[in-house]
Amino acid sequence: MNTYQRIVLAERPSGAVQASNFRLETMEMPVIGDGQILIRNHYLSLDPYMRGRMSDAKSYAAPQALGETMIGGTVGQVVASRHAKFAVGDFVTGMLGWSEVGVSDGNLLRKLDTTHVALSAYLGPVGMPGMTAWYGFHQILQAKPGETVVVSAASGAVGSVVGQLAKLKGCRAVGIAGGRDKCDYVVDELGFDACVDYKAGRLDADLAAATPDGIDAIFENVGGAVFDAALARTNAFGRVALCGMIAGYNGDDVPIRNARTLLTNRLTLRGFIVSEHMDLWPQGLGELGALVASGQLKYRESVAPDLAAAPQAFMGLLQGHNFGKQLVKLI
Amino acid sequence: MNTYQRIVLAERPSGAVQASNFRLETMEMPVIGDGQILIRNHYLSLDPYMRGRMSDAKSYAAPQALGETMIGGTVGQVVASRHAKFAVGDFVTGMLGWSEVGVSDGNLLRKLDTTHVALSAYLGPVGMPGMTAWYGFHQILQAKPGETVVVSAASGAVGSVVGQLAKLKGCRAVGIAGGRDKCDYVVDELGFDACVDYKAGRLDADLAAATPDGIDAIFENVGGAVFDAALARTNAFGRVALCGMIAGYNGDDVPIRNARTLLTNRLTLRGFIVSEHMDLWPQGLGELGALVASGQLKYRESVAPDLAAAPQAFMGLLQGHNFGKQLVKLI
Repeated sequence: MNTYQRIVLAERPSGAVQASNFRLETMEMPVIGDGQILIRNHYLSLDPYMRGRMSDAKSYAAPQALGETMIGGTVGQVVASRHAKFAVGDFVTGMLGWSEVGVSDGNLLRKLDTTHVALSAYLGPVGMPGMTAWYGFHQILQAKPGETVVVSAASGAVGSVVGQLAKLKGCRAVGIAGGRDKCDYVVDELGFDACVDYKAGRLDADLAAATPDGIDAIFENVGGAVFDAALARTNAFGRVALCGMIAGYNGDDVPIRNARTLLTNRLTLRGFIVSEHMDLWPQGLGELGALVASGQLKYRESVAPDLAAAPQAFMGLLQGHNFGKQLVKLI
Repeated sequence: MNTYQRIVLAERPSGAVQASNFRLETMEMPVIGDGQILIRNHYLSLDPYMRGRMSDAKSYAAPQALGETMIGGTVGQVVASRHAKFAVGDFVTGMLGWSEVGVSDGNLLRKLDTTHVALSAYLGPVGMPGMTAWYGFHQILQAKPGETVVVSAASGAVGSVVGQLAKLKGCRAVGIAGGRDKCDYVVDELGFDACVDYKAGRLDADLAAATPDGIDAIFENVGGAVFDAALARTNAFGRVALCGMIAGYNGDDVPIRNARTLLTNRLTLRGFIVSEHMDLWPQGLGELGALVASGQLKYRESVAPDLAAAPQAFMGLLQGHNFGKQLVKLI
């Protein structure tokens, strides 16, 4: 194998992401130097945050550079190493991007134990999405047993973990998701107490029925009308973990229309980025890994078959077409 | 004096408050029973929260009852007492409403020392408005020396204290107010570093010029466009104390259009009601009283001449016509 494939950002999207924003390139296989590791990626993670990086609007992170490999989390296996801490055959996770192979100096590369946890799970419930759920639930929502926790995008990689952590804590877990299939999965497979299908056209009424005691904590991934509906049901001193506003990823404004509720119900809202809290990752990933290994934390994956399919899968993710964690299989 | 006057809520407003929402009534002077105190009110406090109570929309407090004395904070003097802890001549503050006299059983009635602090100041910087500023600034904003603190309605009873506390803490204090006069007062008399006149039509540009290092903390009294402009200038990990949304008191929606900033700048926002934190009032009022007595905390009052003038003064307050703490003189 003398060449490999990667996908670069060809142009920034104006509005919705399009296939033409990406370019598939064939590259010569790199030769590693002293202290470097060559990794064959097995899975690429697709995540909503990537949409933000494709724009050059001011945000918490620098924009993705044009013509460079798209940013992304990966799991794979070491195929060559001139680094003392990594050996050929090691399973690793890193941020090697939309690419079949990657070179690392070991920084931000982490060895994985696949004895009880599948390799791909390290991009989902035992990776960044799982940690996002863990941090927001434990550090921001701080829900007590008996409280009602609502999470949007409930069947997704983050939302599915939030609801299951809430159940483990003794809370009432209520999801919001798009479509009957996703809602059935959230309740029947993941064990949420209820799930509201926002596409059914009765968001306010259905959410009221699903939260008879109001809402004490919201884990928000979507924003817009879904968030406003949840705010309207909050109890006094409710908490909001603001994790994503996917409703506005194409550049639309995502106003909070129910802003008055923040005051009248004395809510506390916190926006957060899980990568800024790396000190808690060892604890969180340890707990999440144990829950996955013991079968207490379930997850589901949507897997695109190869790198060339990544742009289409990513566009689908932004429109909610994925069902569970969206991955791209590279090998 | 066998009669006294009071103002009751005659009807709930639809939209803007109107004079016809109120009714001035002449009442027979009450006779107090055992354990009661009769108080002659000297000043009535007018505050934006009263607008919320006039509606019967769900909020943090029960609505004001129709036909009953309008709610409100007062300072006055005991004129008759059958209560062991209060004597004729004592100065007191209480919630005796829009009324020349009031009867109390001593609950929520507090004796005042007017040696170094004027009686009316106990309705302003050393009363509920001052405590609102103190709580939001110290407990929510937690600003450090050198940080930039922005407060809307900066010349008002709450905002004026927020900015002066920020200066005492070593912060950069920036006000937002309506009109050149108010802005000049905020800078020249109260010592803020800058003040932006939102009526001048250059809100974004003027706020940018006044906050060259961005905004670390917002004390929000207004909501709407003023709040959105401040959110757009926030630094990472900024804090927002959400105290009021006077822009929406007539029932209009007050959306947060810049909601994305809450996420991208990882802000923490908390809505609060100072009366839910009574445990901190002794400490806060002690500090505020000392600052007023020593002249380090300045304040200004708009005084309506008698009870009959209260409705007009209240409508002016909601439109920003007051300049400093709005009071009604009753004696």
